[in-house]
Amino acid sequence: MTNTIRTKVGIIGGGPSGLMLSQLLDLKGIDNVVLEKHTRDYVLSRIRAGVLEHGFAELMREAQCGERMDAEGEIHEGFYINDNGAMHRMDLAGHTGGNSVVVYGQTELTRDLYEARENMGGNVIHEALDVAIHEAKSDSPYLTYRQGDETFRVDCDFIIGADGFHGVSRKAIPRDVLKEYEKIYPFGWLGVLSRTRPVNDELIYSKTDRGFALCSLRSQVLSRYYLQVPLTDSVEDWSDEAFWDELKKRLPDEVAARLETGPSIEKSIAPLRSFVAEPMRWGNLFLAGDAAHIVPPTGARGLNSAASDIYYLYHAMMDHYLKGDPTGLEEYSAKALARVWKAQRFSWWMTTMLHNFPDNPDYDRRLQDIELAYLLSSDAAMTSLAENYVGLPF
Amino acid sequence: MTNTIRTKVGIIGGGPSGLMLSQLLDLKGIDNVVLEKHTRDYVLSRIRAGVLEHGFAELMREAQCGERMDAEGEIHEGFYINDNGAMHRMDLAGHTGGNSVVVYGQTELTRDLYEARENMGGNVIHEALDVAIHEAKSDSPYLTYRQGDETFRVDCDFIIGADGFHGVSRKAIPRDVLKEYEKIYPFGWLGVLSRTRPVNDELIYSKTDRGFALCSLRSQVLSRYYLQVPLTDSVEDWSDEAFWDELKKRLPDEVAARLETGPSIEKSIAPLRSFVAEPMRWGNLFLAGDAAHIVPPTGARGLNSAASDIYYLYHAMMDHYLKGDPTGLEEYSAKALARVWKAQRFSWWMTTMLHNFPDNPDYDRRLQDIELAYLLSSDAAMTSLAENYVGLPF
Repeated sequence: MTNTIRTKVGIIGGGPSGLMLSQLLDLKGIDNVVLEKHTRDYVLSRIRAGVLEHGFAELMREAQCGERMDAEGEIHEGFYINDNGAMHRMDLAGHTGGNSVVVYGQTELTRDLYEARENMGGNVIHEALDVAIHEAKSDSPYLTYRQGDETFRVDCDFIIGADGFHGVSRKAIPRDVLKEYEKIYPFGWLGVLSRTRPVNDELIYSKTDRGFALCSLRSQVLSRYYLQVPLTDSVEDWSDEAFWDELKKRLPDEVAARLETGPSIEKSIAPLRSFVAEPMRWGNLFLAGDAAHIVPPTGARGLNSAASDIYYLYHAMMDHYLKGDPTGLEEYSAKALARVWKAQRFSWWMTTMLHNFPDNPDYDRRLQDIELAYLLSSDAAMTSLAENYVGLPF
Repeated sequence: MTNTIRTKVGIIGGGPSGLMLSQLLDLKGIDNVVLEKHTRDYVLSRIRAGVLEHGFAELMREAQCGERMDAEGEIHEGFYINDNGAMHRMDLAGHTGGNSVVVYGQTELTRDLYEARENMGGNVIHEALDVAIHEAKSDSPYLTYRQGDETFRVDCDFIIGADGFHGVSRKAIPRDVLKEYEKIYPFGWLGVLSRTRPVNDELIYSKTDRGFALCSLRSQVLSRYYLQVPLTDSVEDWSDEAFWDELKKRLPDEVAARLETGPSIEKSIAPLRSFVAEPMRWGNLFLAGDAAHIVPPTGARGLNSAASDIYYLYHAMMDHYLKGDPTGLEEYSAKALARVWKAQRFSWWMTTMLHNFPDNPDYDRRLQDIELAYLLSSDAAMTSLAENYVGLPF
């Protein structure tokens, strides 16, 4: 027997994108259902991004989920670039008329969204397995999923594929329709989370001859550090001690001297990848976030790019349901992709400028050095960096 | 028998760099000799660059050679980028507080410099063959050359290698001292000079799916056009008619419609190359211009980069001879290279953004499109372009 649910918008994926869209639509009276294959605890155990651009923070507030973010998140008006021992501050606020980013962990943000959904009685279904998309090209698309032995069907007007890079949504689009663009980088990031005081109030992006490092943070008692490592390395190759030793070597002496170390509470290696799938709409299926695009984390665009998709979808759905105007839905793919590609460009640029590419020709390696030297010498170039880092206008 | 000449500065190369330095030094009473292996007519027959940055024009004026340039050269406060049929103006003046470039052919400029040298009785020796550099690492460097059957020796304090990419100067530096950086692009520029009215008042850089094109000019009756062509093409493959036909296809329809065509008075193909040799000083030998660095012509940095070397050398020589301060000479290589590399970066960036790279991965080709889309959307990015195009500060 199949249980049938009727809703307006069926959202696949209970990560921050899906939850935020669900919350925003619900606040406008647009009925929706979220299907998440994992448990809530599992979703909340994932350590991910932590730098929210201005527009993202605004969207959290519009979703009435900004209270804790505004109380506990940290406003960052700049960050540092360490150029082989010399620290240079990137003044985000000064170059963008006062704009900034909020440092607030994705885990916290997802928790806030879950709570908001719960408080509103939102329909978020966990452990929804074998989610499948049906008739996406028709006016009557539907989803099916399984919970235990029971099978469910969700009839809806629109399907949102916010189920990440490995989800089913993108794969539902035929291969002759979907065009995928990909760039693989010849290194990964080894990340460590530790209950230590951050070494610096603001983030430090470190370009050194030994490779890239990033000093980030989640709060004043939770630090997040990364090292560029070869793709052949595994977590087992890196003891905590080896990690801290190498990190110190990639920081200016005076910064290394104040680095507080401690046991890692999470340690993982992630490869760096740039990926875009086009189009982001197929019939009544709309892709959002990692389902359609991935960036390397340099430049902090991943979660923010997902938020930009949600912004466009939210406005498109409001226009459709509240004004009967289909333009936003029709233009979604083109508008979302225009901004997605700019974030891709910025992430590629930051990654290329700051990492060590051992196999690059000498000319290209010198170009990387000069890209940074020019950036540090030019107000216009720093303004360009800043406007991308705090988020281009929607 | 060897005839010996004694001078302070021995300059190899009678192109614009060598002549300008000679003129500037002479005006300060610093005795010098220029050795040029070709005849004056040969040097003046070479069709080269035509866009002079602000600082270059200033240097021409300081050399008391700016009169005709100021009378006949054209001030350009902007240029156009054609993005597959859509014209976008780059407002150089508006983004640089009123800065601009001067369009004035290298041939004319070299002629002015020759005349100035002649009027001052400057020692410019043509058809100086088999120029050789001796004892560059000692305090008594000297040059030798041959004219007909006679051999000459020039004793000097300093030798300036301004003899171009194929000259002897760079080759005089031992291989274990010199480090060369090079990037070859997979295409060339087919250039045509014609006695026709320029199709546009300002330059048009054209990015199209068929490849890059450039509409440039030397004066209101002399046009210079370029097409990106495969490296396997030769001039014989391109009749005038074929050239004009292809150029029209790479311009917006309304621009193509007003293109005035005519017989080519010069037609040539040049490969595109990025090249830097480091250091630019070896003992008392100082490299300048193409002898040390080459850029692809996109971005008009070639002649302007040479001028920046001359600026640093001129000031270093003044400091040395007039103030007894060796700092400028000691810092020449590092200072010149810092600016050279920024011009390399800009030229690489313009070239990469605007040309068709047939073998690039799809992701990289989309990045090129987005680089231009971002540029056209961002005031900061256009300011960065403008400050590089009019010339970064010395």
